[in-house]
Amino acid sequence: MNPPRGMRDILPADKARREHVLAIIRDRYRAHGFDEIETPALEEYSRLHAGIGGDNEKLAYNVLRRGLDAEAIREAAADPAALADLGLRYDLTVPLARFFASNRGQLPGVFRSIQTGPVWRAERPQKGRYRQFVQCDIDVVGDDSARAEAELIVASLDAIDALGLEGATVRVNDRRALDWMLGTFGFTLDERPGVLITIDKLDKIGPEGVAAELRERGASDDAVDAFDAFLRRPQTREYLPFGEAQVRRALPDGAPDEVVAHLAGIGEAVAAGTGLDEVPLVFDPFLVRGMGYYTGTIFELAHPSVDYSLGGGGRYDGMIGRFLGQQVPAVGFSLGFERLVDLVTVQADADARAVVLIHDADVPVAELIAHKARLVRGGARVRLERRTKNLKALLERSAGDGYTAFATVSAGAEDLEVKPLA
Amino acid sequence: MNPPRGMRDILPADKARREHVLAIIRDRYRAHGFDEIETPALEEYSRLHAGIGGDNEKLAYNVLRRGLDAEAIREAAADPAALADLGLRYDLTVPLARFFASNRGQLPGVFRSIQTGPVWRAERPQKGRYRQFVQCDIDVVGDDSARAEAELIVASLDAIDALGLEGATVRVNDRRALDWMLGTFGFTLDERPGVLITIDKLDKIGPEGVAAELRERGASDDAVDAFDAFLRRPQTREYLPFGEAQVRRALPDGAPDEVVAHLAGIGEAVAAGTGLDEVPLVFDPFLVRGMGYYTGTIFELAHPSVDYSLGGGGRYDGMIGRFLGQQVPAVGFSLGFERLVDLVTVQADADARAVVLIHDADVPVAELIAHKARLVRGGARVRLERRTKNLKALLERSAGDGYTAFATVSAGAEDLEVKPLA
Repeated sequence: MNPPRGMRDILPADKARREHVLAIIRDRYRAHGFDEIETPALEEYSRLHAGIGGDNEKLAYNVLRRGLDAEAIREAAADPAALADLGLRYDLTVPLARFFASNRGQLPGVFRSIQTGPVWRAERPQKGRYRQFVQCDIDVVGDDSARAEAELIVASLDAIDALGLEGATVRVNDRRALDWMLGTFGFTLDERPGVLITIDKLDKIGPEGVAAELRERGASDDAVDAFDAFLRRPQTREYLPFGEAQVRRALPDGAPDEVVAHLAGIGEAVAAGTGLDEVPLVFDPFLVRGMGYYTGTIFELAHPSVDYSLGGGGRYDGMIGRFLGQQVPAVGFSLGFERLVDLVTVQADADARAVVLIHDADVPVAELIAHKARLVRGGARVRLERRTKNLKALLERSAGDGYTAFATVSAGAEDLEVKPLA
Repeated sequence: MNPPRGMRDILPADKARREHVLAIIRDRYRAHGFDEIETPALEEYSRLHAGIGGDNEKLAYNVLRRGLDAEAIREAAADPAALADLGLRYDLTVPLARFFASNRGQLPGVFRSIQTGPVWRAERPQKGRYRQFVQCDIDVVGDDSARAEAELIVASLDAIDALGLEGATVRVNDRRALDWMLGTFGFTLDERPGVLITIDKLDKIGPEGVAAELRERGASDDAVDAFDAFLRRPQTREYLPFGEAQVRRALPDGAPDEVVAHLAGIGEAVAAGTGLDEVPLVFDPFLVRGMGYYTGTIFELAHPSVDYSLGGGGRYDGMIGRFLGQQVPAVGFSLGFERLVDLVTVQADADARAVVLIHDADVPVAELIAHKARLVRGGARVRLERRTKNLKALLERSAGDGYTAFATVSAGAEDLEVKPLA
């Protein structure tokens, strides 16, 4: 008698915390000029399986086509995709691209969206990972300048600050820089996607591990040697203050001006937007991020209190064009909502006046409801509880549920004495 | 390039209105001592198809079982249910019953829940009806007294008032009264479910239509005649002020004391809770409500401005027992959220300080972001817009999006002059 495997029920105290965290994030994002939208949980099967969603496509829950007869089912044995015509979204990015293509005429030229909502992935259940979880994305569609990245990063840092997690930093890289760099080492175009998968493990397996895995992949010795030597340069792994000089220093000589200028522009704008002397960005030339759809800047949100990322995103200038048949630049930032909820210690404010009315069994219902109504009209939140033998336990449970005061009610009582709940 | 058939995208202005309406409802329900919970969108197939969901079971979206091989698919031709192991919820009541059974040990003895969230039904698409829509339910689990109904009704009327829809009334009946009444006319136990389906059409087809349809169904002439005569009594269709005398007057003589007392108790408590001289309830002995799981009180929310119901609910004392193997009384009230959103005219407050910054194309990004950040830090909501030829149209669109002020930004400008938007 449990929720489906890998999914969970959310009880009142947890639900209140989640809604509180979400409300703070949405408030900050709205302040920065982003607007909330919503798309259906279901999308056409063909759109969810168009090769855009990467590995997530394999994890999609597919919805059984309605009205299949026995013959259609037998025929589908050869083509199981025929069994499904819809699926549950596995992220909010593919639906956003579809939304923008559907509604472009009604949206501003530069569209800044907020999306918060559940997504579904049939991952192997494990501690802290759920098959339904909330994503919290902002995206800027229609702006190819560094302004877009700066707005996303400044707004997200503001949201993180508002959650009490000051001191976050954003690791930044650019897929074009990565690709160019791999070219300078001599990796062929065909080799590069595999090389990226290996580089993505750098933090886990270290430079030796990366070199070994690249050789296993059959990459050419010269390229691996060149890359290995580069990885071992002292300045490569020094995360220096962000800026044009630092980007150039961390990359091989001759990095493309356009990419360096875009990154430097983000740095200046984030400095202007945060007002911080030390801009909370670090350039990481080995940041990869898994999704195949990234085409430019990529970033990841880090906080000193944890060794995992609290969010991230990047540019995906090609994806909307896939749906619309016309190129539209886009860049997004996704906060790791489930991780933030676990980390954040801010509590939903205890309601200023939350009163438990503890009543004897013989108080007439209409009297009880009248007492409750008077307090509610006065601005309180009120719960009725029938008196139990263990009054202390009842009061403790009420305090745990966020109640701050109580009164006892006997039959015929006129006025109630509302006392603070210890 | 649209959402799936029968589903919809929600654009910023609509989304803001929906969130505003939802926030008001949740605030009022919380004030009345209800607590928010959340269950997964997916439930086990077997639970969604246990005969509890009535006609909605046929409308469920079922999720394809993962890892089916060709042979399993061929075998499923004889048993299509084998293709699905999960399904999308079609209401919030079946999941609540499952939730309560799963989590009972962590919940108060009387549990008052708020659930708001989407449900999915594969209905034939038609205007104003969607295949994904939001439900907004409160339920009281563990209280078999009239207190439970009174808390639901008082809280729901308060929410409706807060939405600016004063003057709502609740039509009330009791399935036990209905069943007893049909017995007095001589309808057999077997006939009664069909008779209820016909009575449910009384408002549409009138007493003649009801009598004709009952005869078509093959109900005994004596019973139909007795019912028809009763329907034509003047006092039967006079909706009088609610109270014990009125309930007795509207029913055949000898109505069961227990049922009458329960209804009268609700009336007294709702009067006490609303503080209204004329209690906003009407007893309607022909109110049926479709769901098979109702076991006692049923109610429907009506408003003089519309001829359709804005919500409703009832007692379903048997359902949780189906999951838990132990009887637990329960009663719920569901607001018709989608209908309310269409009806309600309250607007999300225009943000007190929502500023559009209209900038020349040559303003450096860092300058723009600095201007924006200063205003955001000062408490404003800020959107950047690049100046277009038609400034007037841009200002009008901004006002339509809820912005209340604007400033123009040139390169090198130090201070901005923020002016009201028309």
